[in-house]
Amino acid sequence: MRHLPLGKLPYEILNARVLSRIVIDNSVLLPPKIGEDGAALKTSDEILIVASDPITGATEKAGWLSVHVNANDIAVHAARPKWFLATILLPRGASEEDLDKIMDGILMGLREVKACLVGGHTETATKVSEPIIVGTMIGEPIIKGRFITSGGAKPGDAILVTKGAGIEGSLILATDFKEILAKKVDHKILRKVLEFEKLISIIPDVSALLSIGIDNISAMHDATEGGVLGAIFELAEASQCGFIVYEDLFPIRPETKEICEALGINPLKLISSGTLVATVNKDVTEEAIRSLKKAGIESAIVGEIIEDRNKRILVDRRGNENQLYKPPIDELWLLYEKLSIAFER
Amino acid sequence: MRHLPLGKLPYEILNARVLSRIVIDNSVLLPPKIGEDGAALKTSDEILIVASDPITGATEKAGWLSVHVNANDIAVHAARPKWFLATILLPRGASEEDLDKIMDGILMGLREVKACLVGGHTETATKVSEPIIVGTMIGEPIIKGRFITSGGAKPGDAILVTKGAGIEGSLILATDFKEILAKKVDHKILRKVLEFEKLISIIPDVSALLSIGIDNISAMHDATEGGVLGAIFELAEASQCGFIVYEDLFPIRPETKEICEALGINPLKLISSGTLVATVNKDVTEEAIRSLKKAGIESAIVGEIIEDRNKRILVDRRGNENQLYKPPIDELWLLYEKLSIAFER
Repeated sequence: MRHLPLGKLPYEILNARVLSRIVIDNSVLLPPKIGEDGAALKTSDEILIVASDPITGATEKAGWLSVHVNANDIAVHAARPKWFLATILLPRGASEEDLDKIMDGILMGLREVKACLVGGHTETATKVSEPIIVGTMIGEPIIKGRFITSGGAKPGDAILVTKGAGIEGSLILATDFKEILAKKVDHKILRKVLEFEKLISIIPDVSALLSIGIDNISAMHDATEGGVLGAIFELAEASQCGFIVYEDLFPIRPETKEICEALGINPLKLISSGTLVATVNKDVTEEAIRSLKKAGIESAIVGEIIEDRNKRILVDRRGNENQLYKPPIDELWLLYEKLSIAFER
Repeated sequence: MRHLPLGKLPYEILNARVLSRIVIDNSVLLPPKIGEDGAALKTSDEILIVASDPITGATEKAGWLSVHVNANDIAVHAARPKWFLATILLPRGASEEDLDKIMDGILMGLREVKACLVGGHTETATKVSEPIIVGTMIGEPIIKGRFITSGGAKPGDAILVTKGAGIEGSLILATDFKEILAKKVDHKILRKVLEFEKLISIIPDVSALLSIGIDNISAMHDATEGGVLGAIFELAEASQCGFIVYEDLFPIRPETKEICEALGINPLKLISSGTLVATVNKDVTEEAIRSLKKAGIESAIVGEIIEDRNKRILVDRRGNENQLYKPPIDELWLLYEKLSIAFER
């Protein structure tokens, strides 16, 4: 195991561990290279969709996740991720193997979403205590010249949720808290949750949903921090609308249910990359669910958009209306906070 | 002073401190907003230039610098920075004022380079001990469809250096080591170095140099980590050439000279954003220097590109030829290493 020196990576390591592994397509006119400050790309649409997100909450699979969370942010706009930039900050004392693992994950993610690595920066820094990957994804519309926003939902639109609430969170919990969970949850359940990895990309969801016609989709959003409830809240906020959703209509996978019960967590407020929230014309909800099912993706209508933006209502299992005034704080953060307070004691 | 909670910023703070301050132009079809995952942009060229860089080495002016280092990476390709994404990671316990200061710097930098903030992410994370800003800049060619790389230098081309070696490093040292330097260097010198801020952008250098005709410029590079000597080494590496440069021809500002002597640092190996290294047709060197001078920018020819890529030679003041086998480690990193070892003792 060789430690990396402080600062920017030496050439030979950068070449061997990063640059020589990059696979490009013919949209990349100037790929990332030693001594080049930027990359040159050739576009095929006048519209670009861009997004940037760091990975700091998860400890394993970080490289892979950094591609997918950013690709998801592109996909919700009905766009295709094409070019990725990754800044990797490693703590003092990190090894070449640490970097390799992150790069393995990034390259696997990029193969899955069919995008190219076109830039970034790798360095060992004294200011980070764990690796941090900041990804930026650039994409282009799937349908030339068209894109969807979170802010397009209209009163009467149906709210559709795919795959299940809290799927990313289930995966993070099963990895980071495996010892605690091993005492409370069946081993088989935990092993099955690790397969949720395959659900993290919403690109298949978006592709399948687009078959109902882009004009039948008024808004899409990805359920990241704050979970699926946070995503619906954000979509309503961006659309200047209200909503009413029903707790018992939300799809929740049995494995998520078990893990969340064991840790006292509400799955609707648990980070859930991979879960697409979309508002669709209420006349085509059956077609939407059928199209998704054909692609192997379960989905459900959980409520509808309403005009009054002051009404953001979750009807719980007992039929009580709960008014939401702000987006929920993610259950994962609350758990980390709780544990770190416990550690400090 | 209000502390920020752990995790993603709450809406009201994100809106008040970040989103409401963003200024966009009509190339931004969908600006960054609460609940939108990405931004939508309208391009005006088929070519994009992209680059990403974190700011971790400097403690003050970090936001401002994060714009300029990324804008410089775009400018060296003869492109204009247009759209910026910033991921801001704050340590636990950071305040709203900390965020404001970073945003002030980012917005000031963006006004200077005429680019728009179109995305990013702000969070408080347990894994960073100081604020880290990871910027990504997207730009378009200044001359439609054309761009310059670091790898285009040809044997016989003259190597031009603008402004002076180690200008960014002088500024960082005068800020971070002001107490040590105050004992060794005249106060007036230190105050004058703070004005080097105005030199950090290479956009004026590139604009002025382009007046000699883009076909007379074979390569450009920005002198970041490893200093001006590192930049020449990288440019030669990318161009698969050698070089011969003469120590006494390098422009070095008197303030840089004093600070570097006081700290035992070689200014040619000191980080120097703002210093443009360009290789130009040797028949137009006088015109190049004149064009730059007209824009108020001093420059000098410091040597030439040669065919033998194994010869990378610095002729020192005594006339001795020093062969460089790899790019120098930045003097700033060596100094930090030295000091942190001292602390650990």
